[in-house]
Amino acid sequence: MQIYADNAATTKMSRTAIEAMLPYMDQVYGNPSSLYSIGQKAKEALENARERCAKCLNADPRGIFFTSGGSEADNQALVSAAMLGEKKGKKHLISSAFEHHAILHTLKKLEKQGFEVTLLPVHENGVVRVEEVAEAIRPDTCLVSIMAANNELGTLQPVKEIGALCRERGVLFHTDAVQAAGHVKIDVEDMNIDMLSISAHKFHGPKGVGLLYAKRGIFLTNIIEGGAQERGKRAGTENIPGIMGMTAALEEACARLEDYTKRLTPLRDRLIAGLDRIPYGELNGDREKRLPGTVNFCFEGIEGESLLLLLDDKGISASSGSACTSGSLDPSHVLLAIGRPHEVAHGSLRLSLGDDITEEEVDYLITSVTEVVDYLRRMSPFWRDLVSGKRKHVFEA
Amino acid sequence: MQIYADNAATTKMSRTAIEAMLPYMDQVYGNPSSLYSIGQKAKEALENARERCAKCLNADPRGIFFTSGGSEADNQALVSAAMLGEKKGKKHLISSAFEHHAILHTLKKLEKQGFEVTLLPVHENGVVRVEEVAEAIRPDTCLVSIMAANNELGTLQPVKEIGALCRERGVLFHTDAVQAAGHVKIDVEDMNIDMLSISAHKFHGPKGVGLLYAKRGIFLTNIIEGGAQERGKRAGTENIPGIMGMTAALEEACARLEDYTKRLTPLRDRLIAGLDRIPYGELNGDREKRLPGTVNFCFEGIEGESLLLLLDDKGISASSGSACTSGSLDPSHVLLAIGRPHEVAHGSLRLSLGDDITEEEVDYLITSVTEVVDYLRRMSPFWRDLVSGKRKHVFEA
Repeated sequence: MQIYADNAATTKMSRTAIEAMLPYMDQVYGNPSSLYSIGQKAKEALENARERCAKCLNADPRGIFFTSGGSEADNQALVSAAMLGEKKGKKHLISSAFEHHAILHTLKKLEKQGFEVTLLPVHENGVVRVEEVAEAIRPDTCLVSIMAANNELGTLQPVKEIGALCRERGVLFHTDAVQAAGHVKIDVEDMNIDMLSISAHKFHGPKGVGLLYAKRGIFLTNIIEGGAQERGKRAGTENIPGIMGMTAALEEACARLEDYTKRLTPLRDRLIAGLDRIPYGELNGDREKRLPGTVNFCFEGIEGESLLLLLDDKGISASSGSACTSGSLDPSHVLLAIGRPHEVAHGSLRLSLGDDITEEEVDYLITSVTEVVDYLRRMSPFWRDLVSGKRKHVFEA
Repeated sequence: MQIYADNAATTKMSRTAIEAMLPYMDQVYGNPSSLYSIGQKAKEALENARERCAKCLNADPRGIFFTSGGSEADNQALVSAAMLGEKKGKKHLISSAFEHHAILHTLKKLEKQGFEVTLLPVHENGVVRVEEVAEAIRPDTCLVSIMAANNELGTLQPVKEIGALCRERGVLFHTDAVQAAGHVKIDVEDMNIDMLSISAHKFHGPKGVGLLYAKRGIFLTNIIEGGAQERGKRAGTENIPGIMGMTAALEEACARLEDYTKRLTPLRDRLIAGLDRIPYGELNGDREKRLPGTVNFCFEGIEGESLLLLLDDKGISASSGSACTSGSLDPSHVLLAIGRPHEVAHGSLRLSLGDDITEEEVDYLITSVTEVVDYLRRMSPFWRDLVSGKRKHVFEA
C-alpha cells in the first residue's frame, strides 16, 4: 500500500489545476503588460483569476496581490504593517509562539529594526486565547498576526474572534492562512481579516505561487522592487500559468469543502482513536479544533527520523512536523510551545490525509505506526531506561 | 501572418521545458525537504537541476540560488552586496542609467538607507564604457552592477572587461543577465562575474522562476525570510516544476546558441536595414553590439501606442520598450538615457525575434512597420508641423 500522508507539507496537483495552467504556457503566453492581443488575453485571464480568487475568500478583488507563495506573502504583510505602524509611532507587533518561520523570522528582522514583538503562548491545546490577545494589545500595537491553522499540529485558531477584537481596538489583523485555505472555510469579511496569506501548493495547486490579501486602504510595502506589476506592489512578470493553476485549485477546494470536511473528519478521528491506543503517546493539540485531515502525535522513547524512514519502507509518506525546518536537529518550536519536553518533542509524527484517503488506508496507517513505534522502542536504550524506571515517563500508558 | 516579435518581453514555453515540468506536478510532487522517497526524489531533481544550471553558466552549483524570477534575484544581489559593504564601511554602489527597474528601484531604496549611488551614462550607442566604470570606482565602492544586455535596446555591455576591472579593484560585480542568458554565451568564470540574475521565461522556460548566482564566499541577505530552503537564503517550498522547466529551457537554449546566433544575426540585420529605409527614423543603440534578435527604432511624428495597436491588427505582437513599465505615460528611461528627446522617445518600437523567424516574416515586419508609420504620420498634426517646417526634425530623412 502507498499512502501519501504529508499533505500539510505539499500536495499532488489536481488534474483541474494542471489543465488550467497548460494553455498559458505555449498558447496565451503573452506578457500581460503588453498591448497586443496575446498580452491582453493574458491580462484578462489575470484579472479574471484575481476576481475568482477573491470570490473564494469573499474578498475585494482589488485587495488580491499575487506572490511567489505563502512565505513571500507573510513577509510582505508583516513588513507593510510595520512600516504603516512606524509612521504613526506604533512599533509593537503581536504574534504567537508557534507561527511559521516566515512570520517568526520576519518578526526577528523587524526587532533588529527597533520594533517590539510580543509572542503569545499557545497553551497545551495549541490554541491562542482571545483574552490574551486582548491583554497584549497596547496603544502602540500596529499588528496582530495569528495563523488560521497551525502547520504542524493542525489546530484551528479563533480567527474570527481575534479579528473582531482587533477591529474594535483599531489594530490591523493578519492571518497566515497557508495551512487553512482550501481546508476550512475562509471568509475575510465574516472573519474580520485585514490581511491574509495563502499558498497554492497546499491545496493541490502549483508550487511557487500564492497570494496576499490586503483590505482596501492598507498601503503595502514592496518586498520585490522593479516593474509596476500588481499595482506596483509586487514586481516581476506575472506567473500567469501558476496563477491560473492556483485559481482553479482554490475554486475546486472551496467547492468541495463541505463534502471534504464531512468525509475526512470521521477518518481523522478514527486515526486519532487508533493511535491513542499506543501506550506512552499523546495527540498534540486540541482534539476538536483542528483541520479535518491533520493529526500530530508524540511518542516517548523514539526518534522521529527513524519512525519516518521505517514508515517510508511501508509505503507511507509522513513527517515529524514542518518540512521547512527539516534538516535542523532542534526540536520543533511548535511542540516546545505547547509544552512538550525536548525528549518527547523529538518523537513526533504528523499525518496529514489526502481527500481520497479510505478507511482501509487509515487502518493501515494505525497498524503501521503501532508496529514501527513498538519495533523502535524495543531497540531503544532510552526506552529501556523508561521501562526499568531509570527515567520517568512523560505520558501515561 | 501571425508574428510574435516580443520575445524580449516573454517567450512561448518550449515543448522540452513543458515536458520537463509535468512529472513534478502530480508524480514526483513531494516536498524536497521531506525524508520519504517521493520527497527525496524531488530533492535529487532539485540538486541535479542546480548542477545543470551551473554547468550552463560555468558556475559552481553551490552558488546557484533559485528564486521566483529575475526581479527577486536582482533585488537580492543588490541588497546583499550593500549589506556586505556596510559592514566594511563601504556604502557606494555603481550602476548605469538604463538598468531595469528591478535594479534602479532597489538602488533608490538603498539610497534612502544612506547608501550612495552613481549611475553611469550609457551614451548614444547604449553601451557602458569600461573606463568610466574605472573612474567611478572609489575606495568605498561595494558593488558595480551593469546589465549584460539592455532589455529595451538589446545592446550588449562589456561585461567581461568590467568584471576584470572590478576583480582588479576588489569590488563585487553583479550583472543582470535576464535579457542575455540563453541568447548570448554567459560564462561566469571567463567573464569575471561575482553575481548574476536570470529569469526562465526569457528563454522559453516557465514564468515565476529564476536564479541568482553568487560566487562562493558572498554572504547573501534574505529577501524572503522563513524556512531553511536554498541553504537558508531563500525561504519558501521550492518550485520544483518551475525549476525543472527552467533547467531544461536553459540547457536547450545554451545548446543551440551557436546556430541561433548564426541564423538570427543576418535576419536581425535584414530587419535593421529594412527599417533604416523609413525616413526620419533611427536605430536605437549600437548596430553591432546587440543581441541576435533584438531591434529598437525611434520614428519621428508617431505615438508608440498607436503603432503597436495597428501592428497587432496586422498580426504582429511588438512593444514600445519594456513590458514592465507599460501603462506608464513617461517616456522610456532607457531612450532618454541614450539621449533621445522626449517627443522621439514616445515613438519607439522594439521588435524581438523568435528563433523560428523566417526571412519572409522579417520582410513582412518591414513592410508592415513602413506602412503603419506612413499611415500614422499622415494623420498626425505633429508630423504636419515637421513637414511644414514649424518644428525641426530630430533625425535625417
